[in-house]
Amino acid sequence: MHSLRSPAMRPLSLSPASNPSRPLCFRFLALSLPLFPRSSKSPSERLAIPTAGPRFRVRSCGSVTAKPSSEIRKRGGGGGGGGGSEPDEKLRALRELFTKPGIGIDAYIVPSQDAHQSEFIAECYMRRAYISGFTGSAGTAVITKDKAALWTDGRYFLQAENQLNSSWILMRAGNLGVPTTSEWLNDVLAPGCRIGIDPFLFSSDAAEELKEAIAKKDHELVLLYNVNLVDEVWKERPKPPNKPVRIHDLQFAGLDVASKLSFLRAELNDASASAIIISMLDEVAWLLNLRGSDVPHSPVVYAYLLVKTDTAELFVDSSKITPEVMDHLKNAGVELRPYDKILSEIENLAKQGRNLWLDTSSVNTAIFNTYKCACDKDLNKKSKARVQDYNGRSAIPSGIYRASPISLGKAVKNDAELQGMRNSHLRDAAALARFWVWLEEEINKGARLTEVEVADKLLEFRSMQDGFIDTSFDTISASGANGAVIHYKPEPGNCSVLDVEKLFLLDSGAQYVDGTTDITRTVHFGEPTARQKECFTRVLQGHIALDQAVFPENTPGFVLDAFARSSLWKIGLDYRHGTGHGVGAALNVHEGPQSISFRYGNLTSLQKGMVVSNEPGYYEDHAFGIRIENLLSVVEMNTPNHFGGIGYLGFEKLTFVPIQTKMVDTALLSSAEINWLNDYHAQVWEKVGLYFENRWTKSMSSSPP
Amino acid sequence: MHSLRSPAMRPLSLSPASNPSRPLCFRFLALSLPLFPRSSKSPSERLAIPTAGPRFRVRSCGSVTAKPSSEIRKRGGGGGGGGGSEPDEKLRALRELFTKPGIGIDAYIVPSQDAHQSEFIAECYMRRAYISGFTGSAGTAVITKDKAALWTDGRYFLQAENQLNSSWILMRAGNLGVPTTSEWLNDVLAPGCRIGIDPFLFSSDAAEELKEAIAKKDHELVLLYNVNLVDEVWKERPKPPNKPVRIHDLQFAGLDVASKLSFLRAELNDASASAIIISMLDEVAWLLNLRGSDVPHSPVVYAYLLVKTDTAELFVDSSKITPEVMDHLKNAGVELRPYDKILSEIENLAKQGRNLWLDTSSVNTAIFNTYKCACDKDLNKKSKARVQDYNGRSAIPSGIYRASPISLGKAVKNDAELQGMRNSHLRDAAALARFWVWLEEEINKGARLTEVEVADKLLEFRSMQDGFIDTSFDTISASGANGAVIHYKPEPGNCSVLDVEKLFLLDSGAQYVDGTTDITRTVHFGEPTARQKECFTRVLQGHIALDQAVFPENTPGFVLDAFARSSLWKIGLDYRHGTGHGVGAALNVHEGPQSISFRYGNLTSLQKGMVVSNEPGYYEDHAFGIRIENLLSVVEMNTPNHFGGIGYLGFEKLTFVPIQTKMVDTALLSSAEINWLNDYHAQVWEKVGLYFENRWTKSMSSSPP
Repeated sequence: MHSLRSPAMRPLSLSPASNPSRPLCFRFLALSLPLFPRSSKSPSERLAIPTAGPRFRVRSCGSVTAKPSSEIRKRGGGGGGGGGSEPDEKLRALRELFTKPGIGIDAYIVPSQDAHQSEFIAECYMRRAYISGFTGSAGTAVITKDKAALWTDGRYFLQAENQLNSSWILMRAGNLGVPTTSEWLNDVLAPGCRIGIDPFLFSSDAAEELKEAIAKKDHELVLLYNVNLVDEVWKERPKPPNKPVRIHDLQFAGLDVASKLSFLRAELNDASASAIIISMLDEVAWLLNLRGSDVPHSPVVYAYLLVKTDTAELFVDSSKITPEVMDHLKNAGVELRPYDKILSEIENLAKQGRNLWLDTSSVNTAIFNTYKCACDKDLNKKSKARVQDYNGRSAIPSGIYRASPISLGKAVKNDAELQGMRNSHLRDAAALARFWVWLEEEINKGARLTEVEVADKLLEFRSMQDGFIDTSFDTISASGANGAVIHYKPEPGNCSVLDVEKLFLLDSGAQYVDGTTDITRTVHFGEPTARQKECFTRVLQGHIALDQAVFPENTPGFVLDAFARSSLWKIGLDYRHGTGHGVGAALNVHEGPQSISFRYGNLTSLQKGMVVSNEPGYYEDHAFGIRIENLLSVVEMNTPNHFGGIGYLGFEKLTFVPIQTKMVDTALLSSAEINWLNDYHAQVWEKVGLYFENRWTKSMSSSPP
Repeated sequence: MHSLRSPAMRPLSLSPASNPSRPLCFRFLALSLPLFPRSSKSPSERLAIPTAGPRFRVRSCGSVTAKPSSEIRKRGGGGGGGGGSEPDEKLRALRELFTKPGIGIDAYIVPSQDAHQSEFIAECYMRRAYISGFTGSAGTAVITKDKAALWTDGRYFLQAENQLNSSWILMRAGNLGVPTTSEWLNDVLAPGCRIGIDPFLFSSDAAEELKEAIAKKDHELVLLYNVNLVDEVWKERPKPPNKPVRIHDLQFAGLDVASKLSFLRAELNDASASAIIISMLDEVAWLLNLRGSDVPHSPVVYAYLLVKTDTAELFVDSSKITPEVMDHLKNAGVELRPYDKILSEIENLAKQGRNLWLDTSSVNTAIFNTYKCACDKDLNKKSKARVQDYNGRSAIPSGIYRASPISLGKAVKNDAELQGMRNSHLRDAAALARFWVWLEEEINKGARLTEVEVADKLLEFRSMQDGFIDTSFDTISASGANGAVIHYKPEPGNCSVLDVEKLFLLDSGAQYVDGTTDITRTVHFGEPTARQKECFTRVLQGHIALDQAVFPENTPGFVLDAFARSSLWKIGLDYRHGTGHGVGAALNVHEGPQSISFRYGNLTSLQKGMVVSNEPGYYEDHAFGIRIENLLSVVEMNTPNHFGGIGYLGFEKLTFVPIQTKMVDTALLSSAEINWLNDYHAQVWEKVGLYFENRWTKSMSSSPP
């Protein structure tokens, strides 16, 4: 249809390699093809899909009672069966602890979390998976003296049915009539029971909410500080991670630790706080320019950081600290403390009259409660005699409960961090280019490749890049209908084979020493249907509209969300996830505080230096899924006007990987959209082509051409 | 530039009358020209610009003290001058009342409002204008024993400086360091003073806010029920309006009063309320299918309506009620009560144990407080002996304080209301067509026309249309730089002359028996600059983007606001008002609850049948103003998909008046935008052309061709 357009308009030709002088290694660009989309990670935060965890409690809509999984699934083996529960040795052992001295509880809640509200956690902290047998990323187990129930969300219903034995009731969170954990406890327990939790595994906010909810039935929330009951019964529990911590080089960090601490202390001063406890692992890593290998996908280390106006203390397993890291910390005035001494130091703070800044949405209630109780005790003593604090001021500390100041500082990248993101994205793009060439060749040869094999091959290409460390989340390699499962994770032995007749959605990312990537492309190896092309094109139009948006300072991300949906809305389509999440610089692939979402609660404005994903999609159940994702950094636009005396912002692309042109119905595109696509592919060629050709073996820290 | 485009694209020609066979009366379409935009009314609600009224209190940013206007302005005459105040007879008389028995106050606050939170009010209620001499639409006067201050916003600083005598301090609300009324009172009064208000003139919410604010200095808020101090000193105060009430014909209302009352009673039942007090005048008018002439621009009548589960009572000056209206009310089971008996009936309600639904954002605190005090008294009695209510149920009423259920019912128009809106808009468009023809001819002849003369001529054309009643707000007829004053109101003897070298912005509207209009067009009579054309074109692109939006059900209006700004944002421009407000059907030109605004607090979703304005703009201070406004109704779109199982909505245009093509820089437009403009003008020709030609003298109730 576009041959009808004016000659002033460049014809749509997405294949820069129609230029025969270009090197063979770029021939993939000469094919109809490349290609590639991305999807969402498992954690609910990414695409803001509610899970059953305490932070995303699903409310029941009525009094309908959920059926136990044993009544629904039809399994042959597995013992027991019928109405009776099979004996479960783990549950028996756990319940035995309920009546031990110092415990005395009627129920125990086992969440998915570690002590730091991490998205990815170390194996030794996967207590909910151990006790229940259900290994999905989201879920909460609740064990009473005679019942055991596990909550998870729609992504995991099938998996949970397969993994839970008949001692467990599966609670399908989000389904009509399914109670929350506290509603269920209020229902099955006689009034006035004691419900135990490990206070390290609940944020202060989550614990407060739970406490209030169960108080309706006069239940008491019992914080078991000294023992995690699952750990007690966990045979052959994995050791805590102990790989060495490394320094995040200043050339990538851009700002030394002393400067960051000084910035933080100014914030403390402004807030009249004399200390702050930082428990989010990415915040600790960012502030101290350290990286670790304690959990998959995120380069963080298990630690708490306590920053006071004068000193700073890192609570960490000292065996991970190399002499080099030790020097690095010493230079910044940071002292080491054992990881498990955090509570006693928190108690000391209160005694010293230090006013502690504490983010109740992330700091666990063990810390919160220890501080609060110590302050209350202190208050009683001091109310009799006026006491002076360590600065000679009279002080009765009460705590400052507000959002962490690190979150925004970390989200707004400095020049070095942005350069690292750019560089790592180019190396990542080269790996993806080689991967897509390989994949198309294999498919053309008629190879039989499973989703897992394809993901493994991609990892192989990425591993060959300089500075590669890890994937940044579990790769979503999804053929056909699996693409419609937003958090799909292919499992070996149980996944699909790529099909020349079907769409293939690939959402993946990597951790490099200098940056973090996250990209989705969706491709077809054969002939897409008109329906698939129309949906893909409208998703692409949304992607372009967000990419091209210009907006005034102080604009929250949700204001831009509709730009990415508008083209789909025109034909009555939409997608059920947000359009963009923050991304760390050589840190977590999902970070706040900004987001671009149809949920209107997040008022954080997009700011110069922030990195966000741009990932509209469309999912047709049991048929196909489409998503196109690039990462963008927020930049100041050089607009000819500055109405209101403020700056106007826009986006710079970080991701340079072609978008498959055969999926595009050009008749739907405006000339500006066609130009965008041609310009984007010209940039891909320019940046990744040259880099790939002759720079690839150079140091990853060098700038791209 | 667009001649380069493909032949498949219609060439841009906005002049349907290039067809010579069309009648002469349409020759205006053959000119380069037509033309026309619209702007915002004076009230802050329209474009959500904060005013100094109690509902839009401006907060001060520090302790800077505002200078009194007497220190700033330099005026010759007016007596007094210098530091001393000139004697002010009105203030002296008012202050004398402060110490009378039963009053005993130290300060008195005189707001702009009437007892119903009306946008336009009757002259007899313009107490703030009388006491201060300042006649602008927004302002609050505060008089202490030795000081008098008037708050108004930036629109009125100059006017207030000119109108206030030296006894008054002008408080420039919104300027740095200018205190709010309560901050000022807390500052100038010794602690523990008594501050009087007329409780009919403050909504319950506003009074509560005021009470809390002054309590910081231990001041007491004194509600003077029985006397308005300004009325006491007002010589030759105008009589309250007493023009007859008329019936709003069922062919325009679409739903009879009995049905509306039945709908309302179902809501009462759902809310466990046994009565509701309705005080917003447009809500009373809508519910009873009545219209009045008590205030300018809005066809309403001063009245309260009390709807109980069994009866309904209209509190109104009975001299306005014709026998016909009396029958109409009787048929619907509505009884008359004197307007000033509202409080005694509210007291009775509480005694009867009726649970009253009351919207504290609109119902005045005289009513709220009377009900609450009567309930509290009742509670004390009943707590001793269980008493039964009128239904035989035991009852201690406590009031139900939530938003009025009429607001949404009125906003979602039925088919008859929408047809009346369509019809009246076509007649209005014909009047505008004749007006623009006349204006262009006059300008071409070199006539010297002032902004007021032009507005008067427009009124003359409109007055000739069937069913015309009034303007729907003060016409904004603004030449050149005046167009940049968003709420500009030209004054006779003091306004500009239209200039062939300048832009002319005309924002106007009318009340007809069957509908309400509101339209803005911006035109140039000579040669616009490239800058003006670029700005106009980007405003037009925003107008088109909103007009063409499709969106899922349950979408709040603010989600669409960015569509209207996006094109301006690209070059660093913006406008400081919302994009759309609700419009009544033969009722108030501004109504809630929906809006399309960059303020994100209004979560009301746009619903099928709502009417909204679409009025992006751009204003260059001291140079020009541009605004393009149509009214739209929300309609269900026939999308090929319904993702999420819900409906998708869009807009139907109500306004059919050409947009001046000479202002358009076609190089900036996409082909879809060019098509929109050509299609729109084709529709204008089709609908208004034929109507104008041969239907014009027919009954206004007939459908358009």
